[in-house]
Amino acid sequence: MGRVSGRSLDPYSDRYAPRARNLVASETRALFAVADRPEIVSLAGGMPYVSALPLQDIAEILRELVADHGAVALQYGSGQGHPELREWICEVMAEEGLRATPDNVVVTVGSQHGLDLVARLFLNAGDVVVAEGPTYVGALGVFAAAEAEVVHVPLDADGIQPDALEQALSRLAATGRRVKLLYLVPNFHNPAGVTLGAERRSRIVEIAQRYGVVIVEDNPYGLLYFEQPPPPPMRSLSDSSIIYLGSFSKTLAAGLRVGWILAPPPVRDKLVLLTEAQVLCPPALNQLACVRYLQTMPWQDQIKALRELYRERRDATLDALRTLMPDSCSWTHPTGGFYVWMSLPAGIDSKQMQPRALAGRVAYVPGTGFYADGGGRSALRISYCFPASDRIQEGVRRLAGVVADEIDLHATFDP
Amino acid sequence: MGRVSGRSLDPYSDRYAPRARNLVASETRALFAVADRPEIVSLAGGMPYVSALPLQDIAEILRELVADHGAVALQYGSGQGHPELREWICEVMAEEGLRATPDNVVVTVGSQHGLDLVARLFLNAGDVVVAEGPTYVGALGVFAAAEAEVVHVPLDADGIQPDALEQALSRLAATGRRVKLLYLVPNFHNPAGVTLGAERRSRIVEIAQRYGVVIVEDNPYGLLYFEQPPPPPMRSLSDSSIIYLGSFSKTLAAGLRVGWILAPPPVRDKLVLLTEAQVLCPPALNQLACVRYLQTMPWQDQIKALRELYRERRDATLDALRTLMPDSCSWTHPTGGFYVWMSLPAGIDSKQMQPRALAGRVAYVPGTGFYADGGGRSALRISYCFPASDRIQEGVRRLAGVVADEIDLHATFDP
Repeated sequence: MGRVSGRSLDPYSDRYAPRARNLVASETRALFAVADRPEIVSLAGGMPYVSALPLQDIAEILRELVADHGAVALQYGSGQGHPELREWICEVMAEEGLRATPDNVVVTVGSQHGLDLVARLFLNAGDVVVAEGPTYVGALGVFAAAEAEVVHVPLDADGIQPDALEQALSRLAATGRRVKLLYLVPNFHNPAGVTLGAERRSRIVEIAQRYGVVIVEDNPYGLLYFEQPPPPPMRSLSDSSIIYLGSFSKTLAAGLRVGWILAPPPVRDKLVLLTEAQVLCPPALNQLACVRYLQTMPWQDQIKALRELYRERRDATLDALRTLMPDSCSWTHPTGGFYVWMSLPAGIDSKQMQPRALAGRVAYVPGTGFYADGGGRSALRISYCFPASDRIQEGVRRLAGVVADEIDLHATFDP
Repeated sequence: MGRVSGRSLDPYSDRYAPRARNLVASETRALFAVADRPEIVSLAGGMPYVSALPLQDIAEILRELVADHGAVALQYGSGQGHPELREWICEVMAEEGLRATPDNVVVTVGSQHGLDLVARLFLNAGDVVVAEGPTYVGALGVFAAAEAEVVHVPLDADGIQPDALEQALSRLAATGRRVKLLYLVPNFHNPAGVTLGAERRSRIVEIAQRYGVVIVEDNPYGLLYFEQPPPPPMRSLSDSSIIYLGSFSKTLAAGLRVGWILAPPPVRDKLVLLTEAQVLCPPALNQLACVRYLQTMPWQDQIKALRELYRERRDATLDALRTLMPDSCSWTHPTGGFYVWMSLPAGIDSKQMQPRALAGRVAYVPGTGFYADGGGRSALRISYCFPASDRIQEGVRRLAGVVADEIDLHATFDP
């Protein structure tokens, strides 16, 4: 480069757009590299257990797809996504009580991409996004790249609190702040493990509409329930003012990177143009692999098998927590999905505890990773999706030991 | 939605970010729907001829990949891309005389995605991008979404003109405009079909460095030469101030959506964070399919076969143009890639002619699609990549008839 700034080791630093300031490596990311070491039980990552899939069948589907239809599967496709896949996506959404037309579906490179497209369409620097506290770490990355400010509204065992939401929106309106989006993960929340109650869903839709805020309903886990299905998606209560994000990453395969957006027609039109500018089209191969899988395989049975698998791991987690964790800790009781959110006693900092946990050969994600405002210090996320039940129990045993030591230490030095 | 604006049919219009204004359907896009009709010879689309690939072998590669390594191929992966693929990408770049380390490669969802990431990192609303005139239509989409202004510098048979570039940069500097990027397709230009000469490459690198402008070198076609290889990439002349974009879309398969960015380390770090926020990771399946293809197949021979195929089609195009097109037209003589750029006689408008061409059952892309400033009215792009040679000849024959009629019409009414 021509002129190198004396203040920065990065000679490009005076050329970046202002949004580049927000691109800093997350703590979570650094953690995953350590958590991958074999001696550590990782309760940190949110990777689905893809080994439970019928891999031989999927292998054969891909072979046939390219052997018989390679000229289409390996070619560019439509920016909105393959029409047949969009029809199947409507079938999948119908399983959750959502009626939609393929015309309003936009296929994305995983639902992270869907969220990014929505953020780019709506968010300007300084706009406000209201989200649950805690919220999905990947959403915080999207909103940071969009230079938006995230305002958290607390969750309880029944999901985001409508009264607190109304207060937050009212306060933000009073200070003249522009709230563009309300980002929610209503089912089996990541990281909180709670589900938004049916009654609250209607109230929240009503509140958001009253304040003119578009709801982004992110629902990757809805079909992975353990006892009863969750209440129908908020999108089934209103087809305007709600943008719905879906994904095959948890019910089929994360490595395909196939997700979707269901959006009102004017928003859909703009999202299609935006995704065309961004990636031209999602990969045809991956989309058609989903179509063939849904066409030829007992996909509902496969989802049932995944429910059994993750329920057993959830049970192992909750059993171990109940048996082993100090009484002063509490945690959520997920009825689906991948995560338990654990609260530590006052004064215990999950981030300060983390190096001791890693020394004790167990990894988790500190609660601060799920807040934009420094919240979550006395909480942490436990993922039970990837390790087998005996490993989960061993991990919780190790974690309980670390927490107990931490409580003792705290009692000694700060009684 | 709450309040519907009386001025717009889109109730969300007052909620979008300002960049949404730039999201308008391109003419090219509407054209492709028509051009796909079987009675029309389409010289419009830039689709690679994927049927020339060893489809049975690729089918078997995918089967083995999922059967033997499904737990990795169907799982989330690294945001920067699979390390083994990044090593192979360096091998592929070495074929073009580019030495690079896998550490500086970021895998993207096609090179369109790479360009979008670079635009998001560098461009703020109102920043200037200098590009060839004409330039790649997909780049115009990216820069429009970034709210940047594109300033064109003319091309000739030897590529972008260094003197004109220097004048443009000097003029922009004098008016206080911030030029962030110089976007170039040096090899077998899309749409112009010309290649930047070796001497010009050094001059342009020198000029860009002098003005502190980062070069984005987009090279999807470099390996598809018909006689001699093109001069080495500009990136081989300087490893700072140049961001290089590569792609498997033209040498392997567009439907895999695997491309890459080669960037200086500080830029690479930010691009990795940005792509993680945008898509988490590129699809593992597609990346590993590329690795296995490169590992197990004679990929250099396959590229040679593609060169033969496209050379024959280029020859058919140039033969037909020479034989059939009115003398007052001129066109470029591509030595690789997919495109011929044709200039019509003064007063003939390629966009006005388009409906008559479609009625005459031939499609092309009017030149205006490749300019941000309304230029290109008397030019058009002919793509010879997808139709077989006899269809190309028939298409050029039809087009020549339409052009001749247009010239007659023009001579009659505007002598």
